[in-house]
Parts: sequence; structure tokens; C-alpha cells
Amino acid sequence: MNKPWSDKLRKIEPYIPGEQSKKSNVIKLNANENPYPPSPEVKKVLSNFDTDNLRKYPASDASDLKAALAKCYNINENQIFVGNGSDDVLALCFQSFFCSDKPILFPDLTYSFYPVWCSLFRTPYKTIPLDENFRINPDDYKKENGGVILPNPNAPTGIYENLSFIENILNNNKDSIVIIDEAYIDFGGQSAISLLDKYENLVIVQTMSKSRSLAGLRVGYAFASAELIETLDAVKNSYNSYTMDSVTIAAASASLSDHQYFLDTCNKVINTRNRTINVLNELGFHVLPSETNFVLASHKSISAIHIFEKLKQENIFIRYFKIPRIENYLRITIGTDEEMDTLFSSLKKIL
Amino acid sequence: MNKPWSDKLRKIEPYIPGEQSKKSNVIKLNANENPYPPSPEVKKVLSNFDTDNLRKYPASDASDLKAALAKCYNINENQIFVGNGSDDVLALCFQSFFCSDKPILFPDLTYSFYPVWCSLFRTPYKTIPLDENFRINPDDYKKENGGVILPNPNAPTGIYENLSFIENILNNNKDSIVIIDEAYIDFGGQSAISLLDKYENLVIVQTMSKSRSLAGLRVGYAFASAELIETLDAVKNSYNSYTMDSVTIAAASASLSDHQYFLDTCNKVINTRNRTINVLNELGFHVLPSETNFVLASHKSISAIHIFEKLKQENIFIRYFKIPRIENYLRITIGTDEEMDTLFSSLKKIL
Repeated sequence: MNKPWSDKLRKIEPYIPGEQSKKSNVIKLNANENPYPPSPEVKKVLSNFDTDNLRKYPASDASDLKAALAKCYNINENQIFVGNGSDDVLALCFQSFFCSDKPILFPDLTYSFYPVWCSLFRTPYKTIPLDENFRINPDDYKKENGGVILPNPNAPTGIYENLSFIENILNNNKDSIVIIDEAYIDFGGQSAISLLDKYENLVIVQTMSKSRSLAGLRVGYAFASAELIETLDAVKNSYNSYTMDSVTIAAASASLSDHQYFLDTCNKVINTRNRTINVLNELGFHVLPSETNFVLASHKSISAIHIFEKLKQENIFIRYFKIPRIENYLRITIGTDEEMDTLFSSLKKIL
Repeated sequence: MNKPWSDKLRKIEPYIPGEQSKKSNVIKLNANENPYPPSPEVKKVLSNFDTDNLRKYPASDASDLKAALAKCYNINENQIFVGNGSDDVLALCFQSFFCSDKPILFPDLTYSFYPVWCSLFRTPYKTIPLDENFRINPDDYKKENGGVILPNPNAPTGIYENLSFIENILNNNKDSIVIIDEAYIDFGGQSAISLLDKYENLVIVQTMSKSRSLAGLRVGYAFASAELIETLDAVKNSYNSYTMDSVTIAAASASLSDHQYFLDTCNKVINTRNRTINVLNELGFHVLPSETNFVLASHKSISAIHIFEKLKQENIFIRYFKIPRIENYLRITIGTDEEMDTLFSSLKKIL
């Protein structure tokens, strides 16, 4: 409806978030959430939190969390930026590092928010098709650009590339910022953190949502050279100096202190994933190699949408993308062994 | 230092947040924080929180918090937007509602973030001087504009204008969005919420940081017509669907349920403020009328910067702004009666 002030509003397509069932008795394998709870240290922080202190503003630099991250990853605090989930961090990276008139580059099949941010911030971009095996060809990233962003492992394919691949991209893009989005790196890949000292134009983004079972807490971070972190801080502080609340700072820091729990839960997910790939292969699926907490799989004879709908009727929720090239694939998050066994039984019935 | 990629970075002045002393034995009257703790209901929520559930993403619409706000303020849930502090909400409002080429209007002496957001989002603006009594003249807001934003009460003056003043502004700006920033409304003013049904172009922004003693939790909200809230949601969802964490949603909702506690603490602050104004007057200060949890005051003979520095030596922190027209004023947050008595004693020594 047209109002006298309608021309002053931002024109934007409403974004429709993924389907979240409100039923309780479902197996939820559609959001890449970790099936295991966060470290018990998080519970302790909340139980003992001095809520009287909430009357005060939090530390604007979330210094306790930066100190915990610096210790955990053996880097300097001035190489760390923290935000409310990696989406927040990535959106700020787009605004901070992709400010030229040249197009930024990313794969055609990748995280769906990249083109959304480009549109929001009016960043020109060019997508580059994955090859026939859904892999990134590093030679495609040798052209002039305004920046490069790649998830490693890529999503929704799950495919991981090793560090010499990342170095290849960095060496061919010394005059751009290269962002490696490592949301899923802890499920078998090797982080590019070891390359930070060598490449001042490298930005690594990670999240606590997947491998640390803290999607509900909203914590993400960027690791980069001190100069790039300063730019991120300046942009963030011009929006809002106090973005991360005191409870989140304390709970996230506690989670980092429990390294053994983190390794154990990641290993459980990795083992279940590898078992899942074997069972799905036996059931006639083509499964892409995955170093994440999900698999992308296509059945040889039954259509993806049919399997998706049938599983939904059984209260098992997985993810179907109506996207060219993968419209016959299903993304299945790795749950507990018990949840996956229920999935396998249902699949056997359907096939 | 110039790097090959420097031209691709956002050019931005680093923002320097206000001084936060790390000493423990200080009286902190410089950040407009509430001296009383939040409702005991907040403590209960944290103590009993099911941290296992943090492995899942929060509700992207923070529906529990919207329901609690709708009940508390007797408006519809589709008239409510929530964000990480009112700075987050206001920054999104600037991006969503101030998208024309005409300048937006706001007072010369007002919240310091307004021009910062204009610069960040490339929004043209024009500041309008307050009159000689630091009041807003509504006739000044009758010119063509791209939007209007006013805090009521204004900060750092503390001066409140009544609802017929607000209606005057609204009636003269039917083709723009008018944002009333009510960060301090609960300390004696009357909210413009009752005008929402009459003016579809009105946006009211409030925060839990001051009157609900939850600065550390980062919660702000906007109230407006359903159409404007839809625009805000679309812009927010294109950054990050899951901005507010599960703990914050639960704790903020609980705070709203304890209405008596909220009224009691606001009344305590109001009483202490009124007493403070009397004492400061007796001590030779000119104090602006305040309906907030702070006062802006200037001494007849001693300079503001001198008083500021002397108080700092006594571990009492208040706020001094090196800003034209108020460079001889001090902003003093209302603390407990005990804290204010200590301030008065120190002032007597200094004067």
C-alpha cells in the first residue's frame, strides 16, 4: 500500500528463514545443529552468574572472551574480533573489506547469505561455478576482483580443501582481502590459522554454533592481522559499541576452557558422520565427501523431494534446496547415533 | 601503512568509547547506568536455564520476548521489533527508514550516535540548534526532510517534551518517518505509545539498559505500525536471522513480568534525582529540568572541567563533554542516595 512516506523506506525482499517445526517429538537434522549439549562449564557460568552486575554495560571489547580465544588458538588478542554469531561477523567483514567497485568472487554453490549481503551493501559480485564434482577450481580465482570469500569446508557440499589450496588462492590475490569462512572446520579440516602470520590479507571466520554446541548463544569471531581487526572494530563501534552481552561473554569464555569436551564431541560427530556415509552408500545414495557435521547426498533412483516429504511425514526433518545443480540432493545434519539409526530405518522403508 | 589491498577497506574514523575505569572502588556516575540491580526474576532465569538447549538456534523472531512486550505495553506483537540494545535498533531504523536523498533532521545537541550512523550509511542530515534554554522548537521541524529523529527526553539535556509537542511534530511530518527515541522515558515522562494507532509513520525506540537495569544484557525495541516493523524485520533478517540469543530472550521476558519491581526502582531513581537537583541548586549549580536518570548542570563560578577532574581524583566519575554550548556543563548520572551523598560531600569540598 502506498503511503506518503513509502519512498523513504528501504526496498528489500523479505527474507524467509528455514522451516522450524514447533513439534517436540521430531528428529531435527535440518539446521546443522550439534546433537550434543555444550560443555558443562556453560551451565556453571549461568547458574552462578552475578545478575546484579547486568545493570552495567558489558566490556565493549569483550576482553575476557578475546583472552580466552587468544589462549585457545595461540594468537594475539589484537588479531581477534568477536560478534553475535558468524553471520554478524561476516556481514561486518563485507562492509569493512569489500569496498571497491570491482566484483567480489565466490562459488555459485555456497552459503546463501553471501549474495544477500552483496545486495544489502551494494557490493558488486561474480559467482564462479563449482566443477562437475562440486569442487572449487583455484585457477578460477586468479582474475581481478574486489575480494574473495570461500567457505572451507564449503557448504552445502561439505567438501574440504587443504591448506596448500588456500595458499594458492592467497598467493593469487595479494591485492584483495581473502575471507575463509570456517564455520565447519572443527569436524575434520585444518584451520588456516597457521597462515595468518604469512598473509596479512587473510581473514578467518569461525563460529561457536556448530562444533561448540552454542547456536543459541550467538557467538562468532574473525582472526586476521591487527590492521584488519582494527578496521572491523571501527565499523562495529560506529553501529553499536556494546554488541555482546555480559552473560554471553562469560559463557562463551567458559566453553573455550573445556578443550577436552570440545574434542570429544567433535570426534563423536565425525565418527557418526563416517558411519552415516557408509550406510547411505549401501542404501544406494551418492554422498559427497564431507568434513562437516552434515552430508549432501543424492539417491540413484528415488527423487530428493520425495524422500524429503516422506521423512517429514515420519517427523524426521532434513534439508531440501530448490537450487539448480543440487535439486536432487538432500542435506542431512549428523545427529546422535540413535537419531541416525531411526533415519536409516525410515529410509529403508521409503526406498 | 599502505598495503596492496588498502583501497578496498572501508575508510572510517575509529570510534573511541567513553572511559570505563577498571578500578573497583569508584562511584560510577558517568554511563547512565541504573544503580539498582535488575529484577530477581532475571536471576531465577539464569539459575534454572536449560543450557543443553543452547545447542539449538534461538527463535529468530524472539517470539517469547515479543509476547511479553505486547502484554506489558498492550500493543500487538506485529507492532514490535527487538534488537541487541537500542543502538542496534536505531542503526537498523536509520538503514530502513531514512533512505531518501533529503536530509534527516535532529537537534544539534542530542545523542552522539545519530551523525555517526548518518556518516556510516551515507544519510544526508541537518542539525537544528536547540533554543537558548536547550529546548527543541517544533516549528524548526516544519521543513522538507528525509525523516526526523528526536530523543524524548532529549540527551544530554534531560529535558522532556509532552505528547502534544510530539503530535505537533508528527502532524507537520506526515510524509516522513518520525522516530522518537525514548531511552529515558520511564523516569517521569509519558511514552508516545498511545499515539501509535493514530500515526502510522511514528516509530518509538526504547531500551532495557536504563530503567530495567539490564545494560549488560543488550536489549532494545521499536514499536511502530505493522508495515514499518515488517521493513525492519526484512533488513535485520538480511544481515543475520538469529540476532538475539536464547538466554537474553528468556531473561528479558522475565524482567518484563515483574512490573512492580520496575515501578519501584524507577521511583527510587526519580526521588533521588529530584533531591539531587535541589542539593545542586543549593550548591550554586544551574541544573536543567530533567525527567531522566541524569542531570546536566553548570556551576555559576567554578568551571565544569575543574570539577570533573577534581571528582575523578576522589574516584567519582561523571561525564564531561567537550562540545560547544555545553562545555561548561557536567552530566551526572543518578546513583543511590548514598552515592549521591558522597558526591555532594566532595562537591562541597571542591567549591
